[in-house]
Amino acid sequence: MGVMQGLERRSDSELGQEMHQFAAELYPICRSITGNGIRQTLARIQERIPLQVSEVPTGTQVFDWTVPKEWNIRDAYVKDPSGKRVVDFQESNLHVLNYSTPVHAIVPLSDLKPHLFTLPEHPDWVPYRTSYYKEDWGFCLSHNQMLALEDGDYEVCIDSTREAGHLTYGECYLGGRSSDEILISCHACHPSLANDNISGLTVATFLAQELSERDLRYSYRFLFIPGTIGAITWLAGNHEIAERIRHGLVLTGIGDAGAFHYKKSRRGNAEIDQAAAHVLRHYSKSAEILEFSPYGYDERQYCSPGFNLPVGCLMRSVWGTFPEYHTSADNLDFIHAAQLAESLRVCATVVDVLEDNRRYRNLSPFCEPQLGKHGLYRSTGGDSIGAEINARLWVLNFSDGEHSLLDIAERSGIPFLLIRDAANLLSEKGLLCVASEDYAECDGRAQ
Amino acid sequence: MGVMQGLERRSDSELGQEMHQFAAELYPICRSITGNGIRQTLARIQERIPLQVSEVPTGTQVFDWTVPKEWNIRDAYVKDPSGKRVVDFQESNLHVLNYSTPVHAIVPLSDLKPHLFTLPEHPDWVPYRTSYYKEDWGFCLSHNQMLALEDGDYEVCIDSTREAGHLTYGECYLGGRSSDEILISCHACHPSLANDNISGLTVATFLAQELSERDLRYSYRFLFIPGTIGAITWLAGNHEIAERIRHGLVLTGIGDAGAFHYKKSRRGNAEIDQAAAHVLRHYSKSAEILEFSPYGYDERQYCSPGFNLPVGCLMRSVWGTFPEYHTSADNLDFIHAAQLAESLRVCATVVDVLEDNRRYRNLSPFCEPQLGKHGLYRSTGGDSIGAEINARLWVLNFSDGEHSLLDIAERSGIPFLLIRDAANLLSEKGLLCVASEDYAECDGRAQ
Amino acid sequence: MGVMQGLERRSDSELGQEMHQFAAELYPICRSITGNGIRQTLARIQERIPLQVSEVPTGTQVFDWTVPKEWNIRDAYVKDPSGKRVVDFQESNLHVLNYSTPVHAIVPLSDLKPHLFTLPEHPDWVPYRTSYYKEDWGFCLSHNQMLALEDGDYEVCIDSTREAGHLTYGECYLGGRSSDEILISCHACHPSLANDNISGLTVATFLAQELSERDLRYSYRFLFIPGTIGAITWLAGNHEIAERIRHGLVLTGIGDAGAFHYKKSRRGNAEIDQAAAHVLRHYSKSAEILEFSPYGYDERQYCSPGFNLPVGCLMRSVWGTFPEYHTSADNLDFIHAAQLAESLRVCATVVDVLEDNRRYRNLSPFCEPQLGKHGLYRSTGGDSIGAEINARLWVLNFSDGEHSLLDIAERSGIPFLLIRDAANLLSEKGLLCVASEDYAECDGRAQ
Repeated sequence: MGVMQGLERRSDSELGQEMHQFAAELYPICRSITGNGIRQTLARIQERIPLQVSEVPTGTQVFDWTVPKEWNIRDAYVKDPSGKRVVDFQESNLHVLNYSTPVHAIVPLSDLKPHLFTLPEHPDWVPYRTSYYKEDWGFCLSHNQMLALEDGDYEVCIDSTREAGHLTYGECYLGGRSSDEILISCHACHPSLANDNISGLTVATFLAQELSERDLRYSYRFLFIPGTIGAITWLAGNHEIAERIRHGLVLTGIGDAGAFHYKKSRRGNAEIDQAAAHVLRHYSKSAEILEFSPYGYDERQYCSPGFNLPVGCLMRSVWGTFPEYHTSADNLDFIHAAQLAESLRVCATVVDVLEDNRRYRNLSPFCEPQLGKHGLYRSTGGDSIGAEINARLWVLNFSDGEHSLLDIAERSGIPFLLIRDAANLLSEKGLLCVASEDYAECDGRAQ
Repeated sequence: MGVMQGLERRSDSELGQEMHQFAAELYPICRSITGNGIRQTLARIQERIPLQVSEVPTGTQVFDWTVPKEWNIRDAYVKDPSGKRVVDFQESNLHVLNYSTPVHAIVPLSDLKPHLFTLPEHPDWVPYRTSYYKEDWGFCLSHNQMLALEDGDYEVCIDSTREAGHLTYGECYLGGRSSDEILISCHACHPSLANDNISGLTVATFLAQELSERDLRYSYRFLFIPGTIGAITWLAGNHEIAERIRHGLVLTGIGDAGAFHYKKSRRGNAEIDQAAAHVLRHYSKSAEILEFSPYGYDERQYCSPGFNLPVGCLMRSVWGTFPEYHTSADNLDFIHAAQLAESLRVCATVVDVLEDNRRYRNLSPFCEPQLGKHGLYRSTGGDSIGAEINARLWVLNFSDGEHSLLDIAERSGIPFLLIRDAANLLSEKGLLCVASEDYAECDGRAQ
Repeated sequence: MGVMQGLERRSDSELGQEMHQFAAELYPICRSITGNGIRQTLARIQERIPLQVSEVPTGTQVFDWTVPKEWNIRDAYVKDPSGKRVVDFQESNLHVLNYSTPVHAIVPLSDLKPHLFTLPEHPDWVPYRTSYYKEDWGFCLSHNQMLALEDGDYEVCIDSTREAGHLTYGECYLGGRSSDEILISCHACHPSLANDNISGLTVATFLAQELSERDLRYSYRFLFIPGTIGAITWLAGNHEIAERIRHGLVLTGIGDAGAFHYKKSRRGNAEIDQAAAHVLRHYSKSAEILEFSPYGYDERQYCSPGFNLPVGCLMRSVWGTFPEYHTSADNLDFIHAAQLAESLRVCATVVDVLEDNRRYRNLSPFCEPQLGKHGLYRSTGGDSIGAEINARLWVLNFSDGEHSLLDIAERSGIPFLLIRDAANLLSEKGLLCVASEDYAECDGRAQ
């Protein structure tokens, strides 16, 4: 039974609501690229799937980078001259410049202002800003909030620490029959931003949960890591594992109401590129396929020229193109139960395609076999043939050991799952066998 | 002199009328995949071209198939309770389910109905139905005819035999200077259906007639065979000949008023694909080129992966897309003299292209030769050059032993025949020679 | 400093006016494929750039051609019966059929008429006609002029010589660090025709002037030659040099107000094709790229199959497509100072692209380097990155020794000069080096 088929046992609304509820659990946590926020997040994920949590010490050299000091925060506020908290971390963790150094001082408004970040074009929203690699402190607030500040002395307090510690990430490995791996990666470093990227964490968690109950061809590795530095840290420590990655997806911004977007891997013609494009074309609506570019999420690292892994990025609305991006408006109302469930189904279908995509060899390659004799044709001539018989003819004609089922699906315009069903039936009837190279590659190995 | 040029000695209307008359001779014969109908059809063709008729015994194993029992029919009818023939094979051979087993019985209308086939969406037309591989009997009639049947007992009679015999096909071989072959194949198994495929039989017969009087580069093989089982039978017995096929066309549905359609071979980039597309683009109007698919006519067998022959399919209206397809409305009024003649001319032009397509080598490859010195240029500079000089420049520039004349025609947008004329003239002037590989391949061999 | 940047020190109007003034100097000279007109033209060019003038004797065999007799002309006229000069070479050198044999006779109008060339569709313009390879004489005049001629005896006089002499051409060689060459070629044989090709002579002269002051990667060769026979003569005598040509441009019709057109080399995918298309797309407006065809200017010879050099043709309005082509209306008003200057800038930018196009190797290919650490990133996260940082990411990601900077510019859609600046900066920071093959090819050789 395919993964997608497994999901169909549950209604979209039941599944979507459970996913949205999990997103709501993760939402309030103050995550950053290091610290307790990400640890708490991983703990929640660990309640659902087997997760190995790694801690990498501050100062560790990872390629051109160094693991930074660990950042933790307990409280932060700005009090106006009357002592009232006018900016309050307890209300939203977005109010603090992420990675702010500690500060506690009384400053006049004019000295405070250079430390305030707002969005004049959306005067009610709070922006999300970070200062990971420069020592600085600051507050983010709505533009209207800032305009309301009157002259006077303000008490500013950021009760944070930025000191030697660890970078934390989570890894869920599900062994399959082959040691070849499929990588699913999502960043776990953004604080209260729902689409970017609690949606990714949620879809990845539920996908891992669904896969963990199955006999799989590939091994699967799910990474829940801080963006950029996390992917770099993982790659620096896992060069050999990286070489086993056959296909990969970065999941991000996958819970909003926008159309699906798939950004191709650097290779541009990898099997994951073909599979994701096929699935979006057939199983989603109004999806778009984007060419690779070196800016974006952690596909930047997986697709750096030294690795050049076949890893693409699956999104709904593309980061930077919708106004809510990196603001307080990317909240739990911006993502939806139905969209989360649909994203999970699309991922499951991509997995089904990758699991079942093989090259076959037609065992009766000279002329067509007599399908009727094998119970695979209609009996009265003259009518048109149906989609199923058509799929069988396509599989037979192109199963020459060179065309994969996905190639055949693309060339025929027939959905992969129908092509796969035809291949399974023809194999049962003894008319088809898996091409020997493909058999050896994945299916023939002991786990 | 080219084949096309030869045809131009006769007017379109004279040629077309002769073709339509031949189609009318073949129309009433009750053909099937075996039996006397196909024998009579081949006898008519044999009056015009040299045809070798083969008989393959019932039970012969041909790849995954077995040559079926031979079917013959003398009469068939349904008599109503008053004894009147309400369905009558003598009126049209479409009235009987093709390959019906014999039956003679009195049955109530309710028992008769499961054996009746009609077309509710075209209530005046009789459908064409077959039951080659399942033992069954039945009648085809117009929907209005069926609605008029009143309750009562009906006498049904099908005076047919379905017993050990032979599968019959015809083959016309015209030897050329090379043993490399061009295959023209058409199915001869449909009863009174004019476009599908008396039109194909007619065009093929007239093309063979035209070619039989000529000195040819290639050898030509025309097959008049029952669809599917005929092609399979021929391929099973002629594996070695199949390896000599360099180009091929299946001709079908080529007499109606629709635009030309060419369906590419499985290879997609074979010379026949290039030639047919070129000819249709330049010498026909509103033609369309279709990608290969494994459903259709006998290109399914020629393009099965074990053979993968460069055989495409030339049609006018595509089977299954026009309402008259496989009904009594595909009659002699549905095909036209002018269209049959035009189809023949298109085929002749494709043959001309294949016969004359070669790679040449420019013998003055450094800079242009001085065309004026060779009498190949205009004398006063300043005006534009004409199409003929332009064709000479294209041939000279791209005759590097790699580009064929057809490649040059395609790249320049100039019709092949103009490019060929330029090549002939330049060869006469000693500026060009046939590239040695191409010379050896075809032209240099004794017949 | 790039060539384009060098030009920017001067205002467009200053530069354009100087160019137009130079064109005006060349305009009245009666050029032909041989003779004193081309010598005078080369003398003017020689005042601006180092030019080696070659003289090739009449009768010299050059491939399939022979260097023709030298043609010179002092005067030519038609006098009407009253003795009035009604067609006068002194007014415009277009009035004589170029390369006319000498004649001095009294002829009735009826005998004169076959020697008169007019343009009925533009009755006020004088056409340009030649008769290089056929011995003939004639006059070109406006159609209205001809209609005004009354019956009677006319004195015709062409005081020309057509006798053994030389074919003259000019060559400006600018040595660079590599002996690999860039060829700039333009025809210098047309008399008073401004766009075709005084514009080309002017742009080439000014480009050579600009390049002559520079340290260059490539060596540059500018050819000022008679069309066709000049290119053939040069190629016949310089086979070894031709093999060093890495990129080339024919410049013609490049001073009018039309949009730019670049006609690709025969190869179609040469670096010059990529560079010219890129520059026109980014640095010009409404430019068009044309496929190669074997008719046109001297790219016909450079791209003949024996040489197949990577030489394209840069134009504004395409010859033969505008009514002024090869008529007296192609005069100094048809070309413009601003367009001449813009054409020069486009050429300079193409040169910049070719000079700076190299393949690089990312020295930190595993994951992205930490750009912030190297001073190459913004400090506060959350905003979008700018065009410069984006260019750096593209260069780093695709500098794998296989993609050139131009490949990266094309793939990213970023202008080449921005990509080059990024590569220079990354090289300075030690993050990038020139790929060893490219280093050896051009940059590492002594001059």
